[in-house]
Amino acid sequence: MSQFDLIVIGGGPGGYVCAFRASQLGLKVALVEKRPTLGGTCLNVGCIPTKALLHSTEQYVFARDHAAAHGIKFDGVAADIATMMKRKDSVIAKLTGGVAQLAKARKVTVFNGSASFAGGPGHQVEVTSTDASTGGKPITQTISAPNVVIATGSLPAELPSVRIDGKNIISSDQAIALDEVPKKLVVIGGGAIGLELGSVWARLGADVTVVEFLPKIAAACDDDIVRNFTRLLQKQGLKIETNAKVTGAKFNGPSGVLTAERDRAALEFTADKILLAVGRRPNTENLGLEKIGVALDPKGRIQVDSELRTSVPGIRAIGDAVAGPMLAHKAEEDGVAAAEWIAGKHGRINWNFVPAIIYTAPEVATVGLGEDAAKAKGIEVKTGRFNFAANGRAIASDTTDGYAKIIADAKTDTILGAQILGHGAGELIAEVVAHMEYGGSAEDLARTIHAHPTLGESIKEAALAVSKSAIHAL
Amino acid sequence: MSQFDLIVIGGGPGGYVCAFRASQLGLKVALVEKRPTLGGTCLNVGCIPTKALLHSTEQYVFARDHAAAHGIKFDGVAADIATMMKRKDSVIAKLTGGVAQLAKARKVTVFNGSASFAGGPGHQVEVTSTDASTGGKPITQTISAPNVVIATGSLPAELPSVRIDGKNIISSDQAIALDEVPKKLVVIGGGAIGLELGSVWARLGADVTVVEFLPKIAAACDDDIVRNFTRLLQKQGLKIETNAKVTGAKFNGPSGVLTAERDRAALEFTADKILLAVGRRPNTENLGLEKIGVALDPKGRIQVDSELRTSVPGIRAIGDAVAGPMLAHKAEEDGVAAAEWIAGKHGRINWNFVPAIIYTAPEVATVGLGEDAAKAKGIEVKTGRFNFAANGRAIASDTTDGYAKIIADAKTDTILGAQILGHGAGELIAEVVAHMEYGGSAEDLARTIHAHPTLGESIKEAALAVSKSAIHAL
Repeated sequence: MSQFDLIVIGGGPGGYVCAFRASQLGLKVALVEKRPTLGGTCLNVGCIPTKALLHSTEQYVFARDHAAAHGIKFDGVAADIATMMKRKDSVIAKLTGGVAQLAKARKVTVFNGSASFAGGPGHQVEVTSTDASTGGKPITQTISAPNVVIATGSLPAELPSVRIDGKNIISSDQAIALDEVPKKLVVIGGGAIGLELGSVWARLGADVTVVEFLPKIAAACDDDIVRNFTRLLQKQGLKIETNAKVTGAKFNGPSGVLTAERDRAALEFTADKILLAVGRRPNTENLGLEKIGVALDPKGRIQVDSELRTSVPGIRAIGDAVAGPMLAHKAEEDGVAAAEWIAGKHGRINWNFVPAIIYTAPEVATVGLGEDAAKAKGIEVKTGRFNFAANGRAIASDTTDGYAKIIADAKTDTILGAQILGHGAGELIAEVVAHMEYGGSAEDLARTIHAHPTLGESIKEAALAVSKSAIHAL
Repeated sequence: MSQFDLIVIGGGPGGYVCAFRASQLGLKVALVEKRPTLGGTCLNVGCIPTKALLHSTEQYVFARDHAAAHGIKFDGVAADIATMMKRKDSVIAKLTGGVAQLAKARKVTVFNGSASFAGGPGHQVEVTSTDASTGGKPITQTISAPNVVIATGSLPAELPSVRIDGKNIISSDQAIALDEVPKKLVVIGGGAIGLELGSVWARLGADVTVVEFLPKIAAACDDDIVRNFTRLLQKQGLKIETNAKVTGAKFNGPSGVLTAERDRAALEFTADKILLAVGRRPNTENLGLEKIGVALDPKGRIQVDSELRTSVPGIRAIGDAVAGPMLAHKAEEDGVAAAEWIAGKHGRINWNFVPAIIYTAPEVATVGLGEDAAKAKGIEVKTGRFNFAANGRAIASDTTDGYAKIIADAKTDTILGAQILGHGAGELIAEVVAHMEYGGSAEDLARTIHAHPTLGESIKEAALAVSKSAIHAL
């Protein structure tokens, strides 16, 4: 007989949420995590620490550049990096501690160690621990369950020509924990991670250059959004180099050079830190998947069907380890649905409406189909835009940069997507997702009462603009 | 023949929005406003200036009390009231200027002056101006249209025992424009206006006492929300005196006393300013309504039917001048629908789902039916709560006070209302309104993907909690 009903491998947002939901549904659950704390990349070295630093540094910029205009007076603004990092660490500790408490309260048995499939009847999983309790000696125990969910997440991707050394050439893991502001920071990759961490250090005084292979940063966004977003980042001092193919990086002591090519011309960027932020790769090695025959796709992701089942009965996989957007909330939804399916309930995920956010200032939030993507697919769309510069709340709170854009089907008016460049965009997108879940039209959104004064009124106005009937814009 | 298709009396959010929408629909529109600028109470002396001051003072409190913990260092924080007020004035100017520009671009003819019905065939409206262009001499012109919309808004209400003198005893009009911080400010009325302006001056160092007649402040909110909200305001230094019936106010030079009664015991509050914020009354006098027979209800509001028609054919009334919540966005919706009905289109308003916000820190936002109101009506409800203290974004950005509450029908799970006490509540409520517009259930909201990390995840968790399946709480 198996010890558990379910073993979840990986204690990130996908894994622990899956374990919690399964426990709610009455299953006996084991959760295996190799870090000393639960929460995975997201809570320990990803979204959460980044957001903590983004918040502190945004406040620092306000104090330095804007407070005086509000009648807030003081002398000599300076940033104390050690204190900022200490606060960030306390944010992490609060959240990972909270998840651990919840796991305990839910009677989820947490194993700290690396998991590997052992083969054999049912599903046997070996957990190898080397924590303090074992005196540094690896100890392996075997647990079993008829159901396993693989939620091992992802790791920072590398380039053949640039390898992370953790000191000069760093990943986000280190970029959230520098003890001083680099003079020159070169960020490889203009996606969410690169732009967020580039913003953090630029705000603190680093000379930041973002080197992007594609013709634009924030590649999933429409061209018009990216054009405006790029301009706003440049105003904040970030240098944006697109169409630049990185060819190598060399350090000589503390100072280095990143080399790249654009249109066959050589480019050089001097740096004292290089942050590699070219995306993430699924973390599927060392799990013994080959031993039990779990099939991967050509990109190294675990193959799953529409109910997240792998090629091996009883084993599901979720989150960054499978195809789909590598986002914590997508992993969480996967986790909930997987637990529900395992428990014989009706899981349900809508992978079409997964919002994505870049937490810069202003933020960028997108959901569904962009205008460019729709056109590329031959879908005829109408769009409506509204500038935050004409929004009362934005003017009252100095957050007038950017605009909201609603993309609707030209024939049916159904909302197909939204792209928002603006303060609070990440929160504002939620109402658009709600309308989309009901198959709502731009007019449906436009006719829903929005409180005044709120930034959300801009979403309503953008929806009105789809039918050229915005009130606070021509 | 009439000069205009439509005359709108009052250039506040109800009136100018009505005029703009009517102009979009092809009508020739006159807009009469007695202030020198458009925007009404909201833009000139209400929501907008208050929000500007709330934003500046919230930042001041951050600088004074919290910046150090973020590693943001400086010396000697002080508030410069003159600069703060200057910025507030520039916010007003930007918005009222924007509305004026839009009116011009839309070819809405703006008359600056007081309007009064003159009787006679069609609808004749006399506009009396005394602006600089007339050399101080009142000049009256008569304009006419088959359709008139009365959008004259509201005025601060007074108490028989306490009269506004504009100096010692003030209304919100003056409270947004004080040139120094009062030592002791007594606020009569614990509604949105009193609590927001009380917060502004408390943050700047005033000793603020809020005196409320009812057993609780924020009377439209559920008891549990108010209890927590009261505690948070008290932590910020506001004194909250409920069940206190004001009996009089006396000033002797710059120092005064407000007297009140509680359970027949006399109360005294010393003050150097008393802010009267006991609500607003419809502004329906001096319009000549009696001359043409427009009927008022017993509360002095203009009587209207479900399409906002008054008792006189061709004359509609909207916003604060009629029954319903006295909120700018309700007036705007009235204005849009009135214009559409006049133009022969299908206007549409859902007066059941009008969100209301108190812009304190944290904010309070409500929509639909509260838990207490539902129970009072004998409706069986289930509720779900989620504390921001367990939300990642809130922890990362120090906004962990408060919680979100979803109120759902016990039998059908349909969302009946929401009450949110928390940072950004005013923006977060928008998604709940969206779900409510579709008749959505708590499960519908709970199964809609929310981006991580966002405050909006707390709304989702509250919806999950309705069926006791919150993930990040027990």
